Amino acid sequence: MSEAGDTSGGNALRAADVIRKTRDGHELSRAEIDYLVRGYTLGQIPDYQISAWLMAALLKGLSRAETANLTDAMLHSGEVLDLAEFSAAKIDKHSTGGVGDKTSLVLAPLAAAGGLVIPMISGRGLGHTGGTLDKLESIPGFDVNLSVRRFRETLGACGCAMIGQTAEIAPADRLFYSLRDVTGTVESPYLICASIMSKKLAEGIDGLVLDVKTGSGAFMKTDRDAEFLAELMVETGQRMGKKMVALITDMDQPLGLRVGNALEVEEVLEVLRGGGPEDLRELCLELAAWMFRLGGSAATIAEAKKLARELIQSGRALKKFREMVGLQGGDPGAVDDPTRLPRAKHSLNITSPRTGYVAAIQCEDVGTACVILGGGREKKEDSVDPAVGIILEKKVHDKVAAGETLCTLMYNSEARAGRARRLMEQSYQIADSAPVPKKLIHRIIPATQES
Amino acid sequence: MSEAGDTSGGNALRAADVIRKTRDGHELSRAEIDYLVRGYTLGQIPDYQISAWLMAALLKGLSRAETANLTDAMLHSGEVLDLAEFSAAKIDKHSTGGVGDKTSLVLAPLAAAGGLVIPMISGRGLGHTGGTLDKLESIPGFDVNLSVRRFRETLGACGCAMIGQTAEIAPADRLFYSLRDVTGTVESPYLICASIMSKKLAEGIDGLVLDVKTGSGAFMKTDRDAEFLAELMVETGQRMGKKMVALITDMDQPLGLRVGNALEVEEVLEVLRGGGPEDLRELCLELAAWMFRLGGSAATIAEAKKLARELIQSGRALKKFREMVGLQGGDPGAVDDPTRLPRAKHSLNITSPRTGYVAAIQCEDVGTACVILGGGREKKEDSVDPAVGIILEKKVHDKVAAGETLCTLMYNSEARAGRARRLMEQSYQIADSAPVPKKLIHRIIPATQES
Repeated sequence: MSEAGDTSGGNALRAADVIRKTRDGHELSRAEIDYLVRGYTLGQIPDYQISAWLMAALLKGLSRAETANLTDAMLHSGEVLDLAEFSAAKIDKHSTGGVGDKTSLVLAPLAAAGGLVIPMISGRGLGHTGGTLDKLESIPGFDVNLSVRRFRETLGACGCAMIGQTAEIAPADRLFYSLRDVTGTVESPYLICASIMSKKLAEGIDGLVLDVKTGSGAFMKTDRDAEFLAELMVETGQRMGKKMVALITDMDQPLGLRVGNALEVEEVLEVLRGGGPEDLRELCLELAAWMFRLGGSAATIAEAKKLARELIQSGRALKKFREMVGLQGGDPGAVDDPTRLPRAKHSLNITSPRTGYVAAIQCEDVGTACVILGGGREKKEDSVDPAVGIILEKKVHDKVAAGETLCTLMYNSEARAGRARRLMEQSYQIADSAPVPKKLIHRIIPATQES
Repeated sequence: MSEAGDTSGGNALRAADVIRKTRDGHELSRAEIDYLVRGYTLGQIPDYQISAWLMAALLKGLSRAETANLTDAMLHSGEVLDLAEFSAAKIDKHSTGGVGDKTSLVLAPLAAAGGLVIPMISGRGLGHTGGTLDKLESIPGFDVNLSVRRFRETLGACGCAMIGQTAEIAPADRLFYSLRDVTGTVESPYLICASIMSKKLAEGIDGLVLDVKTGSGAFMKTDRDAEFLAELMVETGQRMGKKMVALITDMDQPLGLRVGNALEVEEVLEVLRGGGPEDLRELCLELAAWMFRLGGSAATIAEAKKLARELIQSGRALKKFREMVGLQGGDPGAVDDPTRLPRAKHSLNITSPRTGYVAAIQCEDVGTACVILGGGREKKEDSVDPAVGIILEKKVHDKVAAGETLCTLMYNSEARAGRARRLMEQSYQIADSAPVPKKLIHRIIPATQES
């Protein structure tokens, strides 16, 4: 039959052999993983071999050692920042993505105000989830494309800086990710872990707080999947000498009350002024506390939370945010006067068809509705409308009367508003009785006495 | 996180969605399989998506319907011969490949002598196994590259013709196979089945006898794997309206006594003259009998075997072979005078280190030794030396004295002979007692009363 291998010899690694090894469930060596990552990055291994390997890795899984080696190989495919010039602990936070998740914008200035250095490299909105860079860019003038030199200067001047991924950071990950996106190999915890961790560890940090989202608005729909990914990332970071903690947090409904870029910046400012919706404020305090704990700024979580609360009450966190906005070319006046942020021209209320309680909000639908309004990208090349979005008047567990407003669409295009409206109308479920409340923080990994 | 799908809509099939469906174990529709095969053949789907799909198909398996649809889509990617002009039954035989397996050269003229039409399209040696085309080309002048027109003329003139795959036959299979070869996706029974069956059914046949090899010299090392592939191919052919039978036959040692192209043609001529080694003769009679049964030339296998025996004893099978050789440009004189076939310049005996019984012969090693001597290709672009090979003096179960010859290497290069010698010395295992004899035919699929 026309079915055979190649009988030629040679000791050099061959991509087909490495693919077969993963396919058959055998563990790759460090050298074999380096060969794949380096070979692909240098264009010596074609994409059709890498995509076959990615599918084998997705279906057969990778060991903890393989995952760490893959992360390390992708990390070292590009520049790894050396921030040794800063004596303070360098700590970052990363979220796996959700709807209305604007905690990064609170945490960077809050943690910097507490003395940590926060070299935050973030992403754009993808799928139904929002992106930190898109939110920041709704502040007039804010520049997320700093050079490495200006990134350092900003860190030196105010302790935090927030930029996008540069071409020098983990180029292998960019190549692998583009290929995964079109070959059905995105949804592997091992590959997700290597992708996230290689980019985060390129920041030259000492520790990382992970916010792993779970629920209808998250990529991981179940706690089990979220915990698996969280444990994988924590172990991978620890193997690479980093202080790590992961919080599994609820994304079964949007975080806070505002979804959409400028709308979310407004809510960030509310939190930094000591107000804002309770769930968002609580999660920010909890995540900030863990950043302080990893950075050694407090002996217990309770103490660390107290520190975070004081930094907000004293106005120092808001001051730090204003400082960072100014240093990155943004309009510091918008920090004190949110009317200077972009505003949508029209609004439309969606009302409840009946009296009862909000039993559930299909969280992914809310994110998709925001994308449809123009707040995210349906195709990669789309531009984002910073002004549009959704203001939630009611959240899960709230009582609602027939005809009362559930949420308000802020829009600039009638056609888009029509599509988003249909999605939002079906996303709210109203029931006769209130649902059992869910905890905001489901679990902390590794398990700890304090939480 | 930078991990998401694409939210863009559209009803057209998208390769990434089809890949994900197979990855998640869902059955593809006929339209989805057609989309993959046509899209790849037309260059509309890139190889990196097809290779990811192939790996998912290998690891998750395909259903019987998917396998038949894949076969049919690859079959119809090219020309399907219409041999309706021939009223006789059109029957072929296909072997999954082994060492010393020269039955095709006996069966085509033997079955044609019995009144069947045998439009045989064969392959070259691959890996450690020999190829029918390479054997035929050791006959001076023999042309395996006939046009479709000359193929038909030859079939009309003598009832059999033996050629190589043309560019018009199943072009999708050629593309898929090249990709599988370098992406670790060769060893899937579903993909092997579709590859073999799409090429064989392009011959326009009514029925097919499959010789599925099992053992140390076969691609399927166990009966279980061989039976699985055999059942898959039989069912696929039946779904496409063909008469099918598969024989699971032993390839734990070479078939017959000669391995190497011209050496095997000599042995073919012995069988066609009524002699030859018993195992080869028996298998040829059995396979010919099944070809006659599928073609309706005999009511029982016993009767069909009797017919085959008579066609050999009467010299009609040999005459048919001589006729075909002449029609395809070969030297008909070589059929009666094998000294006109190429001969190796040197020979070297490998002797037994001790007295005892041949307990086993590592069959794949014998095939590889023949490749090393130049009888096959170590790299695809290598040319083949038709003269070289191995003559086995002893086979499994034979008694042997210390110093007695086990086999003889026929070679043209000292360096190659040295490498082949080492392999052959280790391939023979000599023991104190004779092993339990193995049956030549392990099983027939579908199960039948007669065998």
